[in-house]
Amino acid sequence: MHLTIVNPNTTASMTRAIGEAARAVAAPGTVIEAVNPAHGPASIEGYYDEVHAIPGMLAEMRARPGADAFVIACFDDTGLEAARSLMAAPVIGIGEAAMHLATLVAGRFSVVTTLAVSVPALEHNVHKYGFSHRCGRVRSCEVPVLELEDPASGAYGLISAEIARARAEDRAEAIVLGCAGMADLAARLSAEHGIPVIDGVAAAVKLAESLHALGLKTSKACGYAPPRAKTYSGMFAAAAVATNG
Amino acid sequence: MHLTIVNPNTTASMTRAIGEAARAVAAPGTVIEAVNPAHGPASIEGYYDEVHAIPGMLAEMRARPGADAFVIACFDDTGLEAARSLMAAPVIGIGEAAMHLATLVAGRFSVVTTLAVSVPALEHNVHKYGFSHRCGRVRSCEVPVLELEDPASGAYGLISAEIARARAEDRAEAIVLGCAGMADLAARLSAEHGIPVIDGVAAAVKLAESLHALGLKTSKACGYAPPRAKTYSGMFAAAAVATNG
Amino acid sequence: MHLTIVNPNTTASMTRAIGEAARAVAAPGTVIEAVNPAHGPASIEGYYDEVHAIPGMLAEMRARPGADAFVIACFDDTGLEAARSLMAAPVIGIGEAAMHLATLVAGRFSVVTTLAVSVPALEHNVHKYGFSHRCGRVRSCEVPVLELEDPASGAYGLISAEIARARAEDRAEAIVLGCAGMADLAARLSAEHGIPVIDGVAAAVKLAESLHALGLKTSKACGYAPPRAKTYSGMFAAAAVATNG
Amino acid sequence: MHLTIVNPNTTASMTRAIGEAARAVAAPGTVIEAVNPAHGPASIEGYYDEVHAIPGMLAEMRARPGADAFVIACFDDTGLEAARSLMAAPVIGIGEAAMHLATLVAGRFSVVTTLAVSVPALEHNVHKYGFSHRCGRVRSCEVPVLELEDPASGAYGLISAEIARARAEDRAEAIVLGCAGMADLAARLSAEHGIPVIDGVAAAVKLAESLHALGLKTSKACGYAPPRAKTYSGMFAAAAVATNG
Amino acid sequence: MHLTIVNPNTTASMTRAIGEAARAVAAPGTVIEAVNPAHGPASIEGYYDEVHAIPGMLAEMRARPGADAFVIACFDDTGLEAARSLMAAPVIGIGEAAMHLATLVAGRFSVVTTLAVSVPALEHNVHKYGFSHRCGRVRSCEVPVLELEDPASGAYGLISAEIARARAEDRAEAIVLGCAGMADLAARLSAEHGIPVIDGVAAAVKLAESLHALGLKTSKACGYAPPRAKTYSGMFAAAAVATNG
Amino acid sequence: MHLTIVNPNTTASMTRAIGEAARAVAAPGTVIEAVNPAHGPASIEGYYDEVHAIPGMLAEMRARPGADAFVIACFDDTGLEAARSLMAAPVIGIGEAAMHLATLVAGRFSVVTTLAVSVPALEHNVHKYGFSHRCGRVRSCEVPVLELEDPASGAYGLISAEIARARAEDRAEAIVLGCAGMADLAARLSAEHGIPVIDGVAAAVKLAESLHALGLKTSKACGYAPPRAKTYSGMFAAAAVATNG
Repeated sequence: MHLTIVNPNTTASMTRAIGEAARAVAAPGTVIEAVNPAHGPASIEGYYDEVHAIPGMLAEMRARPGADAFVIACFDDTGLEAARSLMAAPVIGIGEAAMHLATLVAGRFSVVTTLAVSVPALEHNVHKYGFSHRCGRVRSCEVPVLELEDPASGAYGLISAEIARARAEDRAEAIVLGCAGMADLAARLSAEHGIPVIDGVAAAVKLAESLHALGLKTSKACGYAPPRAKTYSGMFAAAAVATNG
Repeated sequence: MHLTIVNPNTTASMTRAIGEAARAVAAPGTVIEAVNPAHGPASIEGYYDEVHAIPGMLAEMRARPGADAFVIACFDDTGLEAARSLMAAPVIGIGEAAMHLATLVAGRFSVVTTLAVSVPALEHNVHKYGFSHRCGRVRSCEVPVLELEDPASGAYGLISAEIARARAEDRAEAIVLGCAGMADLAARLSAEHGIPVIDGVAAAVKLAESLHALGLKTSKACGYAPPRAKTYSGMFAAAAVATNG
Repeated sequence: MHLTIVNPNTTASMTRAIGEAARAVAAPGTVIEAVNPAHGPASIEGYYDEVHAIPGMLAEMRARPGADAFVIACFDDTGLEAARSLMAAPVIGIGEAAMHLATLVAGRFSVVTTLAVSVPALEHNVHKYGFSHRCGRVRSCEVPVLELEDPASGAYGLISAEIARARAEDRAEAIVLGCAGMADLAARLSAEHGIPVIDGVAAAVKLAESLHALGLKTSKACGYAPPRAKTYSGMFAAAAVATNG
Repeated sequence: MHLTIVNPNTTASMTRAIGEAARAVAAPGTVIEAVNPAHGPASIEGYYDEVHAIPGMLAEMRARPGADAFVIACFDDTGLEAARSLMAAPVIGIGEAAMHLATLVAGRFSVVTTLAVSVPALEHNVHKYGFSHRCGRVRSCEVPVLELEDPASGAYGLISAEIARARAEDRAEAIVLGCAGMADLAARLSAEHGIPVIDGVAAAVKLAESLHALGLKTSKACGYAPPRAKTYSGMFAAAAVATNG
Repeated sequence: MHLTIVNPNTTASMTRAIGEAARAVAAPGTVIEAVNPAHGPASIEGYYDEVHAIPGMLAEMRARPGADAFVIACFDDTGLEAARSLMAAPVIGIGEAAMHLATLVAGRFSVVTTLAVSVPALEHNVHKYGFSHRCGRVRSCEVPVLELEDPASGAYGLISAEIARARAEDRAEAIVLGCAGMADLAARLSAEHGIPVIDGVAAAVKLAESLHALGLKTSKACGYAPPRAKTYSGMFAAAAVATNG
Repeated sequence: MHLTIVNPNTTASMTRAIGEAARAVAAPGTVIEAVNPAHGPASIEGYYDEVHAIPGMLAEMRARPGADAFVIACFDDTGLEAARSLMAAPVIGIGEAAMHLATLVAGRFSVVTTLAVSVPALEHNVHKYGFSHRCGRVRSCEVPVLELEDPASGAYGLISAEIARARAEDRAEAIVLGCAGMADLAARLSAEHGIPVIDGVAAAVKLAESLHALGLKTSKACGYAPPRAKTYSGMFAAAAVATNG
């Protein structure tokens, strides 16, 4: 299958790392293509960045009508519903993917994300997905997205300390890592703490493969019906053409 | 006060009607400015349209740093959180405005919107705002947004029939009209059915005036903190400049 | 418009302070009348006081059939549903008013009230209004209602300390003051803590003005239908006469 | 034990019937005293009646400091929290009693009450007690409280028809009768429909006996702490004297 | 009445203690029979033990078709739904019994159970019964079930310390003891802490007596319909015979 | 990987069919072993059957310490928590599997199961998993489990008719088939109705493969900790030996 992973931010080095993380868990027959939009923010930290990442992300999807499934590689599940409306192939967000799998291996999980500014958006997603009674707390390590890979940021230690607090204070039995940029840390953190530590990129790859293998596509019956044909103006004129063509 | 109402779609005639509906209920000292973005869809019907309306809507807000408050005149409350992050002045969505006021005059309300494709997004908002136990049902009259003003659409009769069903089947004690384009129908529908019928544009104008009069602005303490300075690429480069300038 | 604010307790000095707080935020055309019942407790602290305040409060409302709207100036929203049944004009409680507005300017709020004995009643209201997922905690500063205005009570400092805890422990982005007697402290507390601090009296005045401006009255369709004509005995005989006359 | 049942309305014939229903299920050692207040409405149908019944009901309780337990014999659980604050002995409402027992013998129950005006108050209680996911629907038979005993009202047939609908439409496995005046119909309705039909008066008597036998009294730790000593004015002056004495 | 209490574990000394605790609160006419299965675990600590206790427990019930009611004397309410399906007489679990009564005497309760391994199962029951908004926290004292009676375990002191924390941190107004083996400690703990401390065995006895006195039996309308006649193989062959006979 | 699927009932023909359905979707490297216990009911229809199926099912798992993952092939997710406690390898129930995937391809789903007696147990699972706001209704086609494969039962038509009702009345956008015995009908029903129809066996196979590929195992941190060493008596003596060995 052809699986397109869209990193919704414009940082190509992060896209490459996401692609590598995805390939590391992909099934033999899965071809991973990791892309990012040309338009939008260099990282997504909060609501404002999020909405500016979506049109570019959707353009990348529209340009790949042959993909068998899509993954949105931002933990906010940026633009997930719009992507499901647009495309025929199934779409998975890495945030939902990690949380769904967490509930299959633990009674209660906590999330560790980057910055406090993202916590309310993630808490909202937890509520929306129905996992409020299973989520101990959404925590932040206060390392910005683009500094995660910088050894000087001390990201590993800060995340690990937050996991220790999650175990003690939230009674978390598993941890969900709240940023695509943390993908490479999951195994080491899991080994250190002795509980499942779940990376959303890997989780989403497997769920996308699963939906594809089962022939399951997004229902077009109601909220995810294809966009209606209509005029799109200005910088989004291309959006209408591609959709309605 | 200066109240800027942004119709997130690009249909100027609808923007004018919204402005008139707003001025009809505005306090003497309120100057209403109704605008719409240059970029985006002609109407918002479903998730895909919604996300393409947001960047243009935010650009209109960024261009008006002197406004005392903003209203988002789409019942989906399109881009509400992003707008709250961006601006110092308070921001109100017409969907939330109508629902909040409905709970102040009735034990249970139902929503009547345009098309079924919008129902899940609105149900999600009901859940997010905490009103699931107060909302009977989100209903649709199956008249597209841009046909609401066309007498041939029979919109009034279809909405009225849906209200009758809401009273009988949902035990609704009040009705929330689920589209900015229905603003001019509220009074007549309320008179016909003998219960409150609430238009979100009018409701949002009064709530925006209320917040302004009380000096209440969006808290910048966590999720609505101003966007962090960062690179915005491509068609959104202007977004970063204006924000970080 | 004529807006009647009923302080449900019998302490006239508190009624005067409430009236002043209301006039400070009222629109130019709003005539504020602040009254209190002749019968009932000197302050409302817990369930027992609350129920004894209601008949007197309703008598004040019945005596003012010409009022355009009513505000109940006790944070428990004492007798709110009964008042909505009785009167044709809309009725707003200061507790609900403050909480509704808090959700429009913050993702999460905490309440600071007077005494621990009131906390469960307020928690119950939070649950009833649907804001459990938006409310961090209901806190008390342990200053009785009638000592709030006494400088020797140290009320300001105790409330401020509780707000600091709410920010640190509850991640509160806004604060709702849980007593009509705290109205004059909101601005100073907001300035000190840098987040919105919301007083219910002011909030309710603006919401009452809003409903009146929009012509919205309580739905009489079901739970708020007018009281049925029936015999009222003893000290409440007047209640029946006034209602059914 | 001495069990005082307070019918919060002033209709003595209904009080007598309630007393008889209670004695029919009371344990050998239980002395049932059924009383009603001198002040208040002849029946309770909606929020307005409810609040006027409470002070008189509490006066009856204050006058019986030696009672071992109290039952509030109105399905709204009128003034339940205030009574729990006031008295040392445990207090049970017939509404909560019936609903708690219903969840012990059925997966899902529906309520059949008198008039539609009472439905929202009862739905609110269902939500407050935590049984929303166990309650199919709150239904009304549209027979006023004081006509229940009048054969001409056709009450039995109307209630029975509503039970049939509850089984078919709500998938109800048990029925809770939503008025103290329906106590004598439970057995016949249960026999007719083949499922448990629960009367709140009987349920509350057994729960009150249970709490008394176990030595369980209302916790005075927080919300049900005794009323604080303070001035009560006017017609309620007696309330303060009795409480603080 | 004949009340059969089944201790689902196989420890006869614990069964005897449960029987004594039950007789201490039983009404004069209640004959208490305390039994335990021949097959299964010596104590129930976690999900695995729980499921192995159920078939033996049900066999004890099947063997007593003449019992008027059954109590399941394990705080997990082990096999409660299956028992309700099987038997005509009502069945009460000690966990649900204690929690229901707790909500009748307190606004908020916390649970103190034995081991952390049981906490998630009990949290799940709290959620299932609808009491999540009334339960502060499920706590464990880390004393295994079979050591509760051993003075060397220090059980009383550890439970008491946990109650102190529940009062300070959870604002608990009452405590539910989360193990049948703690029955004899309730009175002393309640006296020490000055709030209701509820033992499930005693609570269940009174609720079982209550249901029996009211003639209430489990509804057979849907989920608790009797098991369908079918082949049971191997060690459970007897289960089918007894059921279908 | 070695994936053991345990059909918890004792009907070997159904086990074979489940194994075939699993192999049809398994990845190339997945070896499917489908087994059923020697002890227990021939089919699982309601709570009583369910609990008798669990010990035998767990014995099958204990006997396969080398399996990489387990699937429980009954839509009730029979004994899921106990299995997670017992085994080191991950365990997936077909009910949860189908519901999780349904929320990834549709905004709202309904379940169609066999008999009404199973509906409450499934509704409870929906509540427990957090999907109440995403599930329209749990429906039954009234065909017993063991008659599903009998053409004379008319199962296909009855299920199809229930799906039509789910679309019309529940606004379901996807359907979850509520019995392992319906696995072979999913594709045809999906084609007929034009929306995703999800079989739990297939869904669980892919989720089990996903967890295994990611190295995710059940957290042993709290509720799923291994069973404590203790005496198991009678017919379950083997349970203790195998566990503690």
